[in-house]
Amino acid sequence: MILCRTIAELKNELYKIKHSNDQATIGLVPTMGFLHEGHASLMRQSAAENTASVLSIFVNPMQFGPNEDFDRYPRDEERDLAIAQANGIDLVFMPEVKEMYPAKPRTSVIVSQLTERLCGASRPGHFDGVGLVVSKLFHLVQPDRAYFGMKDAQQLAVIQQMTDDLNFPVEIRPCPIVREPDGLALSSRNVYLSAEQRQQAVVLSQSLASAKEWVAEQGMTPEELLSRVKAKISEAGQAEIDYVEWLAYPSLELPAWNEPIAEHRGKYILALAVKFGATRLIDNSLFVTNEEVYNHV
Amino acid sequence: MILCRTIAELKNELYKIKHSNDQATIGLVPTMGFLHEGHASLMRQSAAENTASVLSIFVNPMQFGPNEDFDRYPRDEERDLAIAQANGIDLVFMPEVKEMYPAKPRTSVIVSQLTERLCGASRPGHFDGVGLVVSKLFHLVQPDRAYFGMKDAQQLAVIQQMTDDLNFPVEIRPCPIVREPDGLALSSRNVYLSAEQRQQAVVLSQSLASAKEWVAEQGMTPEELLSRVKAKISEAGQAEIDYVEWLAYPSLELPAWNEPIAEHRGKYILALAVKFGATRLIDNSLFVTNEEVYNHV
Repeated sequence: MILCRTIAELKNELYKIKHSNDQATIGLVPTMGFLHEGHASLMRQSAAENTASVLSIFVNPMQFGPNEDFDRYPRDEERDLAIAQANGIDLVFMPEVKEMYPAKPRTSVIVSQLTERLCGASRPGHFDGVGLVVSKLFHLVQPDRAYFGMKDAQQLAVIQQMTDDLNFPVEIRPCPIVREPDGLALSSRNVYLSAEQRQQAVVLSQSLASAKEWVAEQGMTPEELLSRVKAKISEAGQAEIDYVEWLAYPSLELPAWNEPIAEHRGKYILALAVKFGATRLIDNSLFVTNEEVYNHV
Repeated sequence: MILCRTIAELKNELYKIKHSNDQATIGLVPTMGFLHEGHASLMRQSAAENTASVLSIFVNPMQFGPNEDFDRYPRDEERDLAIAQANGIDLVFMPEVKEMYPAKPRTSVIVSQLTERLCGASRPGHFDGVGLVVSKLFHLVQPDRAYFGMKDAQQLAVIQQMTDDLNFPVEIRPCPIVREPDGLALSSRNVYLSAEQRQQAVVLSQSLASAKEWVAEQGMTPEELLSRVKAKISEAGQAEIDYVEWLAYPSLELPAWNEPIAEHRGKYILALAVKFGATRLIDNSLFVTNEEVYNHV
């Protein structure tokens, strides 16, 4: 496995890979490091589908707000490299901030509408930072396929929209949420949780599981569903709800609020963001009409 | 020469070119058609520097304002193809609007600061449309080099900034302004001019030529220079000045307004936009400290 810390090294190594084989394909797994089994599942998927797989590890300051956790975001380089090696990665790109941003960028890549709700509303500018760094990584690595986890469902929708609108020559590959045995979605931020918060945090996946049953009830409306989900989350003493939303996916448009869910065909997302102390966790499930797909507990 | 009207055809033909030769390089000349000798000079430059050259012809509605000349922008497909063929183009990409924009895009590529003055101020949203379509063309063609004329000096600065900020794997190649024998910069819009307007339009290049002498005068300030240039342009009875500006290039920052030009080292642009009736023409010259470079009459 090759480790590149500069763009020049990366380009040099990619040139060798691409010219080693006329049909070589490259998979990219963009991450902020502190890798867990969710990331590992993306790496294995990439390794299975491509000639070579690139893992990027870059805690991107442009996608953190001024009062967010950029400085304390967890990092463990040695452990990350071991996980990459064990999961089929051929090349790790791990640049410093000044390598990615030698000067303050004047260019913005902004996806509208899709970014108005959920994390886009709670974290102003977050998706502009994501659009910028993903554009840069796509141009630097020029992958055939790029792998993203469904836990960040809004991020995935935004990146797919950007890829379509700008004709990026990259296939976006969504991968299922990976969970702890008790249901908690894996996240690098889970390490922030106290023992008690960790125990309470299971309420996110449990409320998604309950929602699966509630959605099947005759006449269930988005309004009633969200009210029940919020009540369930609030049973956890330290949980502070940021948002609980039921939206069309991937357009993230508002549904008919007071009409039975069963009357509207299509794909929907139930998306949650809940804070435990200073730690903000997200989770979601996708539903097709009344039949849930993907990633449930 | 191959003509592609769809993205699928383009990808198919580019794949063949790129896989015909491990070291093949692609040059791209993005245009809105109605080609003239300025475009032809870009094509010849591309042909000289690359294995294969792609000409795109696309009148991009996203870079026209609601009251601009999108509908009446001149088009002549047959003549354009003959010029392309005669100037070393291997592949012409000429898509319909619905091929480039199958749905209203939700993604914007916005370059700030550089777009606040000159044509960016006169044509709100123009450079957002340019950033979007150039990003799309770069992704569709994946050229090694792209060729742009210095007549659109602000466009060139914006595209270079976007390319740097987003790490597009494309070398931007600026090419000199091409002029009529009397000095008028070539433009597809010159066909709009009446005989009298055409005669008067020479005042743009003449005022740039005069500016070259004025800049050399001791103590000449931007304020005094622009005042003289405006007076000279106004001698043409039908000329209506949109802007006359002296700015650092390519940053397009304002210079010290009342201080002698000779006291400030660096590269500067004298940029003009002047309307004759409904026809808006632009022209410019670059200056290095007091020594003019590039493209003068």
